[in-house]
Amino acid sequence: MNNKIKGPYSLNSKAVAEATRHWMQERGVTVDEIAELVMFLQQKYYPTLTMEECVHNVEMVLSKREVQNAVLTGIQLDVLAEEGKLFTPLQDMIENDEGLYGVDEILAFSIVNVYGSIGFTNYGYVDKLKPGVLERLNDKSTGQVHTYLDDIVGAIAAAASSRIAHRKQAEREQELGLPHAPEDVEEAARKPAAEDKLE
Amino acid sequence: MNNKIKGPYSLNSKAVAEATRHWMQERGVTVDEIAELVMFLQQKYYPTLTMEECVHNVEMVLSKREVQNAVLTGIQLDVLAEEGKLFTPLQDMIENDEGLYGVDEILAFSIVNVYGSIGFTNYGYVDKLKPGVLERLNDKSTGQVHTYLDDIVGAIAAAASSRIAHRKQAEREQELGLPHAPEDVEEAARKPAAEDKLE
Amino acid sequence: MNNKIKGPYSLNSKAVAEATRHWMQERGVTVDEIAELVMFLQQKYYPTLTMEECVHNVEMVLSKREVQNAVLTGIQLDVLAEEGKLFTPLQDMIENDEGLYGVDEILAFSIVNVYGSIGFTNYGYVDKLKPGVLERLNDKSTGQVHTYLDDIVGAIAAAASSRIAHRKQAEREQELGLPHAPEDVEEAARKPAAEDKLE
Amino acid sequence: MNNKIKGPYSLNSKAVAEATRHWMQERGVTVDEIAELVMFLQQKYYPTLTMEECVHNVEMVLSKREVQNAVLTGIQLDVLAEEGKLFTPLQDMIENDEGLYGVDEILAFSIVNVYGSIGFTNYGYVDKLKPGVLERLNDKSTGQVHTYLDDIVGAIAAAASSRIAHRKQAEREQELGLPHAPEDVEEAARKPAAEDKLE
Repeated sequence: MNNKIKGPYSLNSKAVAEATRHWMQERGVTVDEIAELVMFLQQKYYPTLTMEECVHNVEMVLSKREVQNAVLTGIQLDVLAEEGKLFTPLQDMIENDEGLYGVDEILAFSIVNVYGSIGFTNYGYVDKLKPGVLERLNDKSTGQVHTYLDDIVGAIAAAASSRIAHRKQAEREQELGLPHAPEDVEEAARKPAAEDKLE
Repeated sequence: MNNKIKGPYSLNSKAVAEATRHWMQERGVTVDEIAELVMFLQQKYYPTLTMEECVHNVEMVLSKREVQNAVLTGIQLDVLAEEGKLFTPLQDMIENDEGLYGVDEILAFSIVNVYGSIGFTNYGYVDKLKPGVLERLNDKSTGQVHTYLDDIVGAIAAAASSRIAHRKQAEREQELGLPHAPEDVEEAARKPAAEDKLE
Repeated sequence: MNNKIKGPYSLNSKAVAEATRHWMQERGVTVDEIAELVMFLQQKYYPTLTMEECVHNVEMVLSKREVQNAVLTGIQLDVLAEEGKLFTPLQDMIENDEGLYGVDEILAFSIVNVYGSIGFTNYGYVDKLKPGVLERLNDKSTGQVHTYLDDIVGAIAAAASSRIAHRKQAEREQELGLPHAPEDVEEAARKPAAEDKLE
Repeated sequence: MNNKIKGPYSLNSKAVAEATRHWMQERGVTVDEIAELVMFLQQKYYPTLTMEECVHNVEMVLSKREVQNAVLTGIQLDVLAEEGKLFTPLQDMIENDEGLYGVDEILAFSIVNVYGSIGFTNYGYVDKLKPGVLERLNDKSTGQVHTYLDDIVGAIAAAASSRIAHRKQAEREQELGLPHAPEDVEEAARKPAAEDKLE
């Protein structure tokens, strides 16, 4: 990245968000499937958790630029590997999901990190077990390459799980009548007028 | 961390937030001083940036639990090292800000990471130059130990700078009439009613 | 850390290595138990893997300063929490292995990272399943606090697994008569003699 | 990455190492130029440091698979952006070194991390100052795209600086007759012969 604001180039955050949606769908992954991974990870801790909440939290994770950047970059590399357009030996490493190639994990981790370190364990767990959509993405017999998307989808589910943990704690404090200090997001939500002016 | 919700123990997020404030003040660091580091880092990119905005963004960084955890843990280790209460050789390593001891940087990075990778460069830059409050924290002649706080303060300034970059981009898109997609925080702010119910 | 070499303070790397050994033993964790986690993680990929190899790779992970720093810092915080000597609310958070406290994971990750991103998944997997020694460390009924050590032990096992993956790949290339380029460690070892003898 | 060893695909580590060399040269970056960045970062701490040592340490960083993976992936994305072959809006973001695009920093950090957290500061510092080769890579008027390589080169210099810090500490302990515990690399080297000869 570069801190300088350049004249002609104008980022359009909506285009970035929409491209992220488009490409996840194009590669066969739905928000509902990621929400199912979240439910798989979180229902034992929050028995009343609904699929609607899981979907909402996946959506919120997908609204983050850091996440969109990682998704788009990873899918781009998968697509190019599938088309055989990368140079050797990167082509082989990504096409074969090579054991010593870990850049896919690095991108995945930048997604988990957006909601902090408490998501590390959940990421590793679903990445090993490959439940639901991850099993399909990991099927090497289709000719499709999902070396990046596989890890990215697990990371989005882990990040959404972390987001839920923060929200549930806030709910719990409020129910118990404990003093509560909102984090960034919640404070923003509480002060719509002031924040609007700021933004 | 542990995903299980335990019966008797009830986290009080307000107590965590207040302890963070208390201990930063106790160790001699003010929000204004951190805001000055933010201004130092960002004014060339945003000439109209005000100290008020810098202060607000530092406050928002400090409202994050991930940040509070790192601040409290780091200051605790500094205080114990100052009192000579750590075991050998950890005592020596922290007391002397040992060159091969990098756990302070690791905690600092968990702070920067909350607002993504675009803050890495700013962190390294202020950590090397040691402007303003960082020079005082880094003064080894006082008998005080700020091995952790030194890096943590730079990390908070870098994270606040990243937060500003995201906000300024949003402002710029809106001014240019470009389509704009809010990130998590902004969406929360835009929908106070719906979010209130959710939260 | 601080890049300046200071006059009076002289780090003794052997003291750091020995303190790491001492404190792991003092807290009830043996190298063999960590090696068993490595075997648990790796035997399906390398059916001929021996416990001796697992032990050796754990030892090599433990010889790294970055790892020793994290181990000593984490155990120190566990011990102080067990003795009730941390300030509030950090005391409560570490003593209760609080769900939103993730500094233990951050330290664990600095250990995994020493052998690269390919260990992320293994770390998360054992941290969720808690096999072997991890189950004992995670037992909250003993009065002992292992909030950090629990994650650190899983991280050492994951790092040793990554180290094995690199070594096995090198062995495999040599068996297949493929051209082989040693990494840092192997090149160092190869200069005076053959790598086979070393392993 | 995928832990499964697959039948037909055989990684050739030498091909990966050679492709890394080839592509760095192809994109106009020499080992000597990176060594100059190392000298810029380290000479005030080690006045007797030679360019030969800097070159050797850059070479050792470049021999690591984790580093090679990041270099190849980053250069591939730069090349494709230069050729206009990425999909929109990723094409625009990488071509314009977009301020909120931070995947380049994430890859850079995976390089720094191989030698631990003590390199974070050096990375940020050169990435901000852009001395030597970094100024040329950062020149946007050439039509070339070095969004990734720019950060990667700074990261290699920072990692080599961390490697030097570890080596110099080992040398210093030996000169002072302090007990010395070799890290992984040195132990490997010491077994057949003395470390002095190696370095």
